[in-house]
Amino acid sequence: MSGRRAPIAGRYTAEEVGLAARNRGMPLEALRYDVTPAGLHYLLIHFDIPEAGAVPRLELRGLFHKPFAVSAEELQALPARTVRVTMECAGNGRGQLAPRYPSVPWLEEGVSTAEWTGVPLATLLARAQPRAEARHIVFRGADRGFDRGVEHDFARSLGLAEAMREDVLVAYAMQGAPLSPQHGAPLRLVVPRWYGMASVKWLCAIEAIDRPFDGLQQARSYHFRRESGEPGEPCTLMRVNSLMAPPGIPDFYSRKRSAPPGNVTIRGRAWSGSAPIARVELGIDGSWTVATLEPAAHAHAWTAWHATWQATPGEHELSCRATDASGNTQPLEPPWDLSGFGNNAIQRIHVSVNAAAR
Amino acid sequence: MSGRRAPIAGRYTAEEVGLAARNRGMPLEALRYDVTPAGLHYLLIHFDIPEAGAVPRLELRGLFHKPFAVSAEELQALPARTVRVTMECAGNGRGQLAPRYPSVPWLEEGVSTAEWTGVPLATLLARAQPRAEARHIVFRGADRGFDRGVEHDFARSLGLAEAMREDVLVAYAMQGAPLSPQHGAPLRLVVPRWYGMASVKWLCAIEAIDRPFDGLQQARSYHFRRESGEPGEPCTLMRVNSLMAPPGIPDFYSRKRSAPPGNVTIRGRAWSGSAPIARVELGIDGSWTVATLEPAAHAHAWTAWHATWQATPGEHELSCRATDASGNTQPLEPPWDLSGFGNNAIQRIHVSVNAAAR
Repeated sequence: MSGRRAPIAGRYTAEEVGLAARNRGMPLEALRYDVTPAGLHYLLIHFDIPEAGAVPRLELRGLFHKPFAVSAEELQALPARTVRVTMECAGNGRGQLAPRYPSVPWLEEGVSTAEWTGVPLATLLARAQPRAEARHIVFRGADRGFDRGVEHDFARSLGLAEAMREDVLVAYAMQGAPLSPQHGAPLRLVVPRWYGMASVKWLCAIEAIDRPFDGLQQARSYHFRRESGEPGEPCTLMRVNSLMAPPGIPDFYSRKRSAPPGNVTIRGRAWSGSAPIARVELGIDGSWTVATLEPAAHAHAWTAWHATWQATPGEHELSCRATDASGNTQPLEPPWDLSGFGNNAIQRIHVSVNAAAR
Repeated sequence: MSGRRAPIAGRYTAEEVGLAARNRGMPLEALRYDVTPAGLHYLLIHFDIPEAGAVPRLELRGLFHKPFAVSAEELQALPARTVRVTMECAGNGRGQLAPRYPSVPWLEEGVSTAEWTGVPLATLLARAQPRAEARHIVFRGADRGFDRGVEHDFARSLGLAEAMREDVLVAYAMQGAPLSPQHGAPLRLVVPRWYGMASVKWLCAIEAIDRPFDGLQQARSYHFRRESGEPGEPCTLMRVNSLMAPPGIPDFYSRKRSAPPGNVTIRGRAWSGSAPIARVELGIDGSWTVATLEPAAHAHAWTAWHATWQATPGEHELSCRATDASGNTQPLEPPWDLSGFGNNAIQRIHVSVNAAAR
């Protein structure tokens, strides 16, 4: 329960393994799906999944002219929107850093895409009528626990303008089915283009306030910091990133790949919270060629890409590197961050090519 | 790709963390559900999830008088059965052992319960008519990779009598919905009461043979061994085991629990592949009291139990211990196994009780 966690050097702790086992990454072969099958969507659950019935109504309160409360059933009677959203954990890639922040040791699998259906948050805010002094909107979940020695319900905020974006949803369905307990039933926030921590699950209150929210998960956690004690920069939009489905077949324990020689179509996905994907390159042993992008029909979902690899016998390292329309590109090495946030370094997959492999 | 994996002492390797991130445990608060929500069921995927379409038909071949092939659609026209099954990975608890076998480092979360619908395997075997010399039935999956240096499709076998058990299913649905890719679509085997490795996913062939199956996952893996080189005993029925949903609220990183003083209802589940659950005890700081068992309406599913804990201020260790009707009971310490199979030692949960906690 201590407020401080010492950085970890070397191998992984039992706490990290416990968090990896109860939270869930997307197996990389699931990059083949435009929309991740519901049970394969990554999951980051800070505390416990609340019991059903923990959130009877969603309350809008604070600096509103007309605060109100609404049940999930009542929400479903309002005009709805469905948005396809690629969501990534801000800590994705943390497990590759050294030294490492003590938290979920994602290697690269903390990303997925889902279709969320719900009511635009703007609809609810318009009905509640924010008062002139309202500047920030706080989202409170029903999941409670300790972090850094502080007991709290998970809560995050957005500035009023960001909260009014028409694609921010209070969602009640995922892939057309009611939210499952682990994805925030009965109601959750979905904030496209932001890292996943903004999309508060088990949403029970929406509160308008006149100053920046000082909750732990907003004011202290989820900041980029080079060293301890810095105020840091808040994590917001997802950095440009990409992954490929590993070719060939794996070894069970090492996950190292084997493939036969010949032409192999490599398929993957690229995304950025800042701008559309402009280019993806496939790297073979450090030599880069431009991949083909598939048409991007959904503004907030990953862009599919493919490229051909002429596999020759021997050991090879495959990588992919995305660049977005704002000119952001993935670094070759992990950018340093004290808490392991925003690691968008290129993926590296090792493949052994030999004629005997099927 | 080497055939040998050295045992691991101390902290966890990147390979173990990679396996923990792509495979998935059931968060222990999900012990509250009689049937685990589909997306929370544990997953152990040896190689990659095969692409849809990798299994166009299920073939019955080998020592049958009337071999045949059948599609998933054709199977669904046959009389079906639905069976509620608690399934546990044979390696559950491996991550608690020292030294540790290099594999998925489950701590205790590799167990879940589902309702599977399908056609009794016996129906298909009866139609194919095993020849007099048929002794074993082999089940081949479409998932391919290397393990211990050997390239193979995942495959397991059952003796003919075990295969004819009326509750062994070729399943096409889970919780009433078509199998998801990760649970074996379009068809999988479900063998109640056995550890999970017997329930072959992405089932593409059922083969009758006249001698014990020599496939890697049958003849070498999944054996209890005290030391390397022993022939060992095959893993078959699940050992008696139990878990409780941790009370109170967690710390994010350590998962250590906090609760207020007072009476707390502790709820959990117990199961055994050998016999019904006869008794569960709740241990508080090493002192045991008998818990109340709820009626067990499903022969192959876990038994719910509850007990009252009178929580007093201070640090406490909570445990549970199940005994089955054959007299098997859980050990206090992990039984030694070279590969980390069958660890059914009691769960130990640490709870800090103080008046300030909610």
